[in-house]
Amino acid sequence: MEADLVIIGAGSGGYEAAIYAYRRGLRTVLVELSPETVGGNCLNKGCIPSKYMRYGAHLIDRFGIMERYGIIPKGFDIDYEKLAKHRNEVVTTIRENFKKFAKQINLPIIYGRGVIKDPNTVFVEGPEERIRTRFILIATGSRPVALGDLVPDGRYIFNTDQIWDIKEIPNKVLIVGGGAVGVEFAYIFRKYGADVTLLEIQRRILPSDDIPEDSARYLGRKLRQIGVDIRTRTTIKSWKKDPSGVRAILSDGTEVTADFILLAVGRRPNTEGIGLEEVGVEKDTRGFIVVDEFSRTSVRNIYACGDVTSPLMLAHKAMYEGKIAVSHMIGEEDWRRDNRIVPKIIYSALEVASVGLTEDQAEDEGYDVRVGVSSFVTNPKAMDDGENEGFVRIVADDETGEILGCHIVGPHAGELIHQVVHMMRKRMDVEFASKTLYSHPSLSEAIGQSASEIHYGPITWIKR
Amino acid sequence: MEADLVIIGAGSGGYEAAIYAYRRGLRTVLVELSPETVGGNCLNKGCIPSKYMRYGAHLIDRFGIMERYGIIPKGFDIDYEKLAKHRNEVVTTIRENFKKFAKQINLPIIYGRGVIKDPNTVFVEGPEERIRTRFILIATGSRPVALGDLVPDGRYIFNTDQIWDIKEIPNKVLIVGGGAVGVEFAYIFRKYGADVTLLEIQRRILPSDDIPEDSARYLGRKLRQIGVDIRTRTTIKSWKKDPSGVRAILSDGTEVTADFILLAVGRRPNTEGIGLEEVGVEKDTRGFIVVDEFSRTSVRNIYACGDVTSPLMLAHKAMYEGKIAVSHMIGEEDWRRDNRIVPKIIYSALEVASVGLTEDQAEDEGYDVRVGVSSFVTNPKAMDDGENEGFVRIVADDETGEILGCHIVGPHAGELIHQVVHMMRKRMDVEFASKTLYSHPSLSEAIGQSASEIHYGPITWIKR
Repeated sequence: MEADLVIIGAGSGGYEAAIYAYRRGLRTVLVELSPETVGGNCLNKGCIPSKYMRYGAHLIDRFGIMERYGIIPKGFDIDYEKLAKHRNEVVTTIRENFKKFAKQINLPIIYGRGVIKDPNTVFVEGPEERIRTRFILIATGSRPVALGDLVPDGRYIFNTDQIWDIKEIPNKVLIVGGGAVGVEFAYIFRKYGADVTLLEIQRRILPSDDIPEDSARYLGRKLRQIGVDIRTRTTIKSWKKDPSGVRAILSDGTEVTADFILLAVGRRPNTEGIGLEEVGVEKDTRGFIVVDEFSRTSVRNIYACGDVTSPLMLAHKAMYEGKIAVSHMIGEEDWRRDNRIVPKIIYSALEVASVGLTEDQAEDEGYDVRVGVSSFVTNPKAMDDGENEGFVRIVADDETGEILGCHIVGPHAGELIHQVVHMMRKRMDVEFASKTLYSHPSLSEAIGQSASEIHYGPITWIKR
Repeated sequence: MEADLVIIGAGSGGYEAAIYAYRRGLRTVLVELSPETVGGNCLNKGCIPSKYMRYGAHLIDRFGIMERYGIIPKGFDIDYEKLAKHRNEVVTTIRENFKKFAKQINLPIIYGRGVIKDPNTVFVEGPEERIRTRFILIATGSRPVALGDLVPDGRYIFNTDQIWDIKEIPNKVLIVGGGAVGVEFAYIFRKYGADVTLLEIQRRILPSDDIPEDSARYLGRKLRQIGVDIRTRTTIKSWKKDPSGVRAILSDGTEVTADFILLAVGRRPNTEGIGLEEVGVEKDTRGFIVVDEFSRTSVRNIYACGDVTSPLMLAHKAMYEGKIAVSHMIGEEDWRRDNRIVPKIIYSALEVASVGLTEDQAEDEGYDVRVGVSSFVTNPKAMDDGENEGFVRIVADDETGEILGCHIVGPHAGELIHQVVHMMRKRMDVEFASKTLYSHPSLSEAIGQSASEIHYGPITWIKR
């Protein structure tokens, strides 16, 4: 078999790159482990099913405000089986749409394990297919890590691959890891009726440097308000089975029982056993593939995208890198990776979105920083929708007014942030953001207002 | 009393301009009819209370999808009194916040009718206050019109000023006018349990040229689906009182009974009796004040903003014009009115958002047009949220790729459209919109996809 491009892995990055390569005229072959894994982790065991359940949790939340809209609900029951069934239907629909589309554009997907034999050969174990190719894109993704003696068994201890198989909402769950996945499941389980304890080893939830303290604190307050027991600087010292499920002794000396433990402590790249060492693709000490600004590895016709390239494991980062790689393969050099403009979004009791630098990061980089904040508390659209919590926080260079970062907590933060992504790509300043014609009432007005706080000087008097 | 600027009317335009003038250092005085009308039509009898009720209707809609999220509701009752009470609370809160803020920044609001005596004098009837000023900004807004013998009486026939006072949801309502306000109330009343007949004299609902046929048709289909009886090319021929309320004979020969008629047939500018003729402020034949690109009238130190300047009666257009006027007063000439980038948003059974040119308008202007469409039907985030209806439609110049317009129907269209507003201000092209890093999954991805349809050529196979 011959191709211009073989993509190993049909997850978000591989699939998006394949469609893009088709558009740009490359004869492309996708290699994926099995028909059930097309779409990768995000689709099958990650962002898509979790966002589905998160929306259900949000719906349950809405019962709390219905009376203010003259809607007097008579209560509701929870049927986890229905939730799981329809969630899985959405996943399957997207996956099958993917495959139908590939078929329609004559994009072959070969099922089996892809191994790089030499820079121009990928061998697919299983069907034993040898493909000769001009370019290779590695998009093999990542897998969850274990933690000491917390070894996922899908019964007492679940990892984020296994959690989809539970048969009912637990009475009580102990979540280890207060990052994006931990706070998302804490919200979901809590709203569907579970008692939730959330452990984070660092001093705050969402411990990533890319997310400002204010965002993490705001979300933490909200999660506590709905009854999530958050314990920071805390880990599991030991655990054992118990009639109720598990019994854990925490590093703060207390004991917690739960139906099970959910491990949400991170992922490692799938960079072993696919021939990287043999062809000389360079990896860093943590096992990530080293890539340049075109997503090219140390071997000149081999590229990599997504979770294999850095710990910033976001589906859209993979898609972006994959498309940049394909552009470079066909000789375009104007599209380069720019981590500055990768939006990071967390869906929990509130949406938490970030792009670019935090205030601290900007100061560390030597900027004189100005920050503008606008609250959703008094935003008329947010008040109309009964979602007036959170804020928009813009970080700008005091000298030029250039927008260096934006951090939004609150309603539809995950969509609103894109306005700033567009602006940051063009290195726009706060004057520009102030003078856009935002519709009224809209949540988007808060972006203009926080930019105005910087451009014209603070006027805010409102509660944050 | 002396001032740099007197603003007549403390509605959206006047109020926003006043805050902006404060920021820019002008001693400003606001003149408003009464403490109860601060905030103007949008806040008190327009977009804010209607968006509140529209969100309630949306919540009721959500009951239809709850089961798919494992939430089995036991039904609900409607309590209109609660709806009205909390709606009014939101309005009052925003209004009182406005006033507190004005107080805090020492911005005087003088209550009474403001009349221009000469280009440097505003007289406020009531308190009989004479204010000497360098500049005047007219922001007096508009009022609903009647239609033939359909004279609003707040009992059989309501206009959009009176509708807020109803004491219960009608059993049956006849809405005259299928524009933004008509389709919004049709959705609200229908979801809260009323039978709704919606009349539109033109051949389609949302008859504005700024809204493409596709958007209007998509919304019309959805409204019919939920049971709204839409009659286009139809008017009321005659009506009379009836035991049930009113009985109307329509131009199609049929008879309709209803609790009452809601008139949503447009508004006229408040440009009489405020001294315009006396000082020589030019008006057009329809009564609108003629303004230039700086929102300046024919009298060089008198400006106007909002509903008084054109039939495009949008709160944010007023705010925008007001700020541009103030900028010009202080000698800035770089901020000019650009109607091209005014977003128009309709909140009904779906959100319908438009900015810039429709395909038809672009062709009329002589462009070779290319259109890219991306559906929300297969958008993963929309599927996760159970809101996968609608589309993003981008209109671009085939030669340069410049984005000329964007038309979105579907979830959060009213926020998403701002991404394109920013881009259009900078005259960005579809290549730019294609290459932004959109988070996955997000609704925003549909913007990138419709831009890609144009930039790379069509690949769409999905159901629209």
